[in-house]
Order: sequence, then C-alpha cells, then structure tokens
Amino acid sequence: MIDELLQDAAVVAAASSVRADGSEPADAIARAAWSVIAEPGDGVAGTLISQVGAVEAMRFALDDRLRSGSAGGVSFPRADRALKEARDRWRLRASTHGVRDALEGARDVGATLLLPGDVSWPTSLDDLGANAPSALWVRGDARLLAPGPHLSIVGARASSSYGELIAAEISGDLADSGTVIVSGGAYGIDGAVHRAALGVDGSTVAFLAGGVDRAYPAGHASLFRRIAEQGAVVSELPCGAAPTKWRFLARNRLIAALGDATVVVEAGWRSGSLNTAGHASTLGRPLGAVPGPVTSAASAGCHRLLREYDAVCVTSSADVRELCGHGDASGATARADDPRQVRLLDAMSARTAVTSAELSRRSGLAKDTVSSMLGLLELDGVVERAGEGWRRVGAKHSSG
Amino acid sequence: MIDELLQDAAVVAAASSVRADGSEPADAIARAAWSVIAEPGDGVAGTLISQVGAVEAMRFALDDRLRSGSAGGVSFPRADRALKEARDRWRLRASTHGVRDALEGARDVGATLLLPGDVSWPTSLDDLGANAPSALWVRGDARLLAPGPHLSIVGARASSSYGELIAAEISGDLADSGTVIVSGGAYGIDGAVHRAALGVDGSTVAFLAGGVDRAYPAGHASLFRRIAEQGAVVSELPCGAAPTKWRFLARNRLIAALGDATVVVEAGWRSGSLNTAGHASTLGRPLGAVPGPVTSAASAGCHRLLREYDAVCVTSSADVRELCGHGDASGATARADDPRQVRLLDAMSARTAVTSAELSRRSGLAKDTVSSMLGLLELDGVVERAGEGWRRVGAKHSSG
Repeated sequence: MIDELLQDAAVVAAASSVRADGSEPADAIARAAWSVIAEPGDGVAGTLISQVGAVEAMRFALDDRLRSGSAGGVSFPRADRALKEARDRWRLRASTHGVRDALEGARDVGATLLLPGDVSWPTSLDDLGANAPSALWVRGDARLLAPGPHLSIVGARASSSYGELIAAEISGDLADSGTVIVSGGAYGIDGAVHRAALGVDGSTVAFLAGGVDRAYPAGHASLFRRIAEQGAVVSELPCGAAPTKWRFLARNRLIAALGDATVVVEAGWRSGSLNTAGHASTLGRPLGAVPGPVTSAASAGCHRLLREYDAVCVTSSADVRELCGHGDASGATARADDPRQVRLLDAMSARTAVTSAELSRRSGLAKDTVSSMLGLLELDGVVERAGEGWRRVGAKHSSG
Repeated sequence: MIDELLQDAAVVAAASSVRADGSEPADAIARAAWSVIAEPGDGVAGTLISQVGAVEAMRFALDDRLRSGSAGGVSFPRADRALKEARDRWRLRASTHGVRDALEGARDVGATLLLPGDVSWPTSLDDLGANAPSALWVRGDARLLAPGPHLSIVGARASSSYGELIAAEISGDLADSGTVIVSGGAYGIDGAVHRAALGVDGSTVAFLAGGVDRAYPAGHASLFRRIAEQGAVVSELPCGAAPTKWRFLARNRLIAALGDATVVVEAGWRSGSLNTAGHASTLGRPLGAVPGPVTSAASAGCHRLLREYDAVCVTSSADVRELCGHGDASGATARADDPRQVRLLDAMSARTAVTSAELSRRSGLAKDTVSSMLGLLELDGVVERAGEGWRRVGAKHSSG
C-alpha cells in the first residue's frame, strides 16, 4: 500500500499541504497511513516504526512477501503472536482511500501534520516509548507543542461552580505567566481550563479523542475554533475518525505525557480524569489534586487520588507552580517556636511589669535562662524593661 | 519536702481519697508533687523518675545534701547543666501546701489520680518516653484511658458548619461502634467531636491544658460536666493550674499519643491542631486530614497537612476506620478494565447486531481475539448472539 500511496499524486499533494515545510513527503505519508490503520498506542506499530522507520514498517506490516521476519535489511524478532495479530488487524483497515481522505481532510480544515524530529515535536511524548504517537494532527499553532512549560489540567464533566472557579484561577494564572495549558476539551473542568487560558491571552492545547475536524462535544465547536485560532487543537487520530471510549482513554496518556505535571480539579469516583492521573503517575510526572468538600461527589475522585495515588494536594496556582518545579520561594516553611520562649512569654504581661525572679517561678525556667532569653527578646522588640521588671510589648497574648 | 508530705495527715488522707484503691500512698503523693513542681513534658524529671521512682527522684531533686549525683543507691550521670537548671526551677515551685492544695482540690471535685502501672493507665503514653506524664488527674471514668480503641479528632476553634458536620459524623460513627473519642475540649471542632460521641451514648475523653477543676473555655463548663459524667476529663496538671500556651502545646502530645490515629477536621494555616498532628507524626501514629474547599480558610491547615506532613486524606468514617487499622473491607479497589474489552464494546451496539469480522475491523482487534472475547462476554451476559452477529446487552454506551 505504501508504494501506491507514494505514487498517488493527490496523496502527495495533500501531504505537501499539511507539511508545507518542503520536507520529503514519504515519511509524512507513511505516518499518516499509520494513524489510519493502527489504533492509538499500538505498541507493535510503535516498535516497528522505531526500528525501521515508518515507510519500511508499513511495507513489512502489509506485504505478504515479507512474512519472513526482516524488512529494509533489518531483522525483527521472529514473528510472534502479537505481531501476527497486529498484521491481521492492520490489514482490515489498510486502504489507500482512507489515507487520502485523512490527508485531504486535514488540508481542507487547515490542519498540519507534526512528526517526530520536527522542531515543534513534543519530545516529552517520547516517554511513552512504543506507545508514543507516530504523528500528531494539529489545527492551530503547532509550536505550542514544542518543548517548554506545559501544565495539564483536567477534571469532571459534571463539575461544580466551585471546581470551575478553581480550574479557571489556576489555568488563568499559569497561562498568564507563559505556561501552555493542556486539557481535553470536554464539558465542565476542561472547558473552564481552556477558556481561562484564552481569557488571559494565554496559550492552550486541546487533545481530542477523534479527528481535529470533528467537534466533540458538539457544544464546544466554537470553543475549539477559538482554541485553533489562539492555541492548538491536536489529535493522533486522522480527520474523520470518531471518538470512542478507547480513544478517550488513549488520548489521556498524551495529556499526561505532555504536561510537566498534571492537576485534577474535581473528578467523580470513577472519572476518566483518574485515568489521565494514572498515566501521569506511571510516567513519573508530578500529579496534583485539588481537594473539595467531602460532601461533594464532584470531588470524590480527587480525594481518591490524594488517598490512593499519592497525589499532591494543590490549593492554589502557587502550589501548582511548586508541583511543576517552576519554583516558588514563598510560604510553606513552618516556623519552629522555641518552647522555652513560649513558656516565658506565657508568664509575662503587657500591662504589668514582672521581675525576672517571678518570671522564673511562673515559667518553671531557670533564672539564667530567663535572663538570657529576656535579653534576646528585648533585642527583638518583643519585651521591654519597666522599672525592676519586664513586660511584653504590643500584641495581646493568645492561648490555645 | 517529700518526707514532710508523707508525714502530713491531710496530704495522706487526700491521697487516699483520690486513689481509693488501698494502695500505699507514697508514690501517689510523690507523683502529685511532681505534677506540681515540673511543667508538662519535663524530660529531666521523667528520666529521674523512671530511674529511681517518683519518691526517690523527689528527694534527689530537692535535697541539697544529695548534690553528689546519686540517689537511693542509684548513680546518675554526673549532674550536668540540664539537671542543675532543672533543680533550680523545681525548687522555685516546691511547697508542701501546693501539693496539699492539688490533692485536696482533686478530692473536692471527685477527681482521681491515675498512675503508671494502674490497670487503666494508657500505656500508649509510654511512647512519649521521658516526656510521658508522671500521673494523670481524671474526672470521670478513668477506665476509658485503658488500652483499647482510641481515636483522636481535633480541629479549628473557628470552624465552619461544614467542618462541624463532618467532625460529628466521624466521631458519632466511631463512638457508636465502641471507639473512645479523644479531643481537646476547645470550641469549634473539638466541641462538635465530644458532643457527637455523647450524643450516641459513646465514650469520649477531653484532655485539658489546665487543672480538671477549671473549665477552659468557660463556655464549655456544662459540656465538661457531661463528659465527666459519661466519659472522662483528664489533665496532667494538678487542680488549680491555669492553662497557658505552653501547656496547650504540651497537652497536644497526650491527645496524639493516646489515639491509635489522629484526624484533623478543619484547621487554620497556623492552627494548634497542626501541633497535635506533628506529635502524631513524630510518634508514628497514623495521621488523617479532612479536606475542604480550598476557598475556606478553615481548611487551609488540613490541606497543609496533606501537602507537607503526608497526612492521609480522609473523607468518611470508613476512611478513618481504615486509618486506625480497625479494618474496612469495602471500597477502594480500582477495577482494571481490559483495554481490548473496552475497544470491542466500543465497536458494538445494543440495537444493531454486528458480525465478528466487522467487529474486528471496527475495533482494530484480530479476529481470533474478537471471537474469544465475545465468548467470554457472552458468559458474563454482557453481549448476546443475534442472527449472524452480536450485540450488547442492556446499559447504554458511555464515551469519555
């Protein structure tokens, strides 16, 4: 099939349109074909492509004469059951018109094809190994996928106004300082995340589970248009491909892999967001969860992440920055009170001066200790001399 | 001083009243005296008492002739600076009338003196080592301190109705099944915790930072009366002692040590509850925190515990039981979907029957795989044969 495709003028023309960088179209056409015949995350395809390149891999995959176990001069492990099964399933989808439709569909909606090795290719996806996508279809600015700060924020479709508020705050704040905000384009939290990034003229990437020419959910059609204009709508599925439950699950791994960290804002007990969170954990990416009222079903999944997945509790954009490792010097360090100082101050009054002997008796601290501590506290402006004694300066004493 | 006390008929009579078990009063009198002259958690006193017993330790502590460094035939490490300082501060408080007042005050309010070695002594406090209390003053049923299931629940004084609700749910539920609920008797969460336990006729223990004869806060006087009737009000401070900030902090270690686990329900960013939580962590006790809205200042401390102290996120009494290790078989195990099954079911419909060849094409799964999976799914009642094809049984397909 690959040789037919490479000789098909319409295919070559469409491939040139979606690449538009003057690069030789064979690899683009082969990878476009792979996105048509293999389901997302097909590890057999990924292994094959990484070993001999997309074009040779395609020859080997579909050519009966090459069953022997070598392609392009490279030997494969003896064709095993997984490989045999893979060839069987690839063949069912292999058609030149399917690939032509994908390329022409992309060209028609102004989508581009981003390939490994491109300057904008997100090398973070390489962490997916054999399950990395063979190519990405992009509507909008593919440069937003290039290595740089990315934060993934996902969450429940059935979100509450509380969750949407927090999602928008975190997304808007991080987007405003230059982080590209990645999410899944769904109703609820995802939508709030994208809108907030757009709202501060920030950058956002929506990963779809179907082709980038299909608005799913349909109610987000205008949102996807805005994202394509100001950010990027991305999929590993070709134009025309329908989103399926499997593709949603597979899509989630891309969201998790692209983000420097993944934050879940609201999620039901069995939310798909937990799947994204699981991918982030597996990939060793920092995982954050925003807590909420335990009485809210929309936060149950987040609490589960905190309990079972060892997610970090994040409550603000500052917490999220820390999670991403973008750094935040402020806050978080507990001040250690000197317990003797607490006892000495307990024994003092701001109104009445007390002798150091009496302070020693009241506090149960030795006289020497009291004297030296009073000296230090005086330097700090916390206590002052008054006649024969000492008293506290300023603020009222609080107990408990 | 100890010999004077042992010969003081009023002291011996009061000691007999607060013990009432016919035991020899010397140890009780000496430990009562220690509770008067040493601040809570005085490690020098604790070490001394553990080495030679409370009576001999008291002799050594206050007798000038014994400065040499041995008491009761036992040699101490050469009197170091810490010991010298300790003796200086103990002497300032050493008075027979102070000890007599403590014992008579306890007798007058019907408090008892619980000592290490007593059947009801909470051996869990031994984990505090040299900082363990030398004795406990108890109003109410001292047996509630005896080894057995204890849960400590503490939280903000400035609580919200949300926090009080959750505190009451957890406390009531655990108390109802026989766990003794431990807290600090403060306004807010602590009060809700005690009341909920009393409300289900459960058992609860309030640790005070001052004497058990002093209601602090005063607004909880009637609550403390109820706790003393149905549970126990406990302090290591003698009757008459005022609560000070230091004593609140020291009291917190007892709450943390007595509980099999400690749960914090709402806490401000610098709440005293974090101190209790810190003690629980130090002691290796499980620590739980109840999350809340990140917009609520009353939950900020809980979120901090989740972030910085590695507290477990608890959202229900079932979670708390699990934390305590009291066991809970239900929930929490994620069901792992077979990804191929997800893909196969994606490709099927409940309305229209589809052939297995078509299912293979749609799902991208090999024919053999499809056939064997259909067989298994049929056994599970998930799919059924229809004419030449297969269809799903029942529930609607959900995507995403």
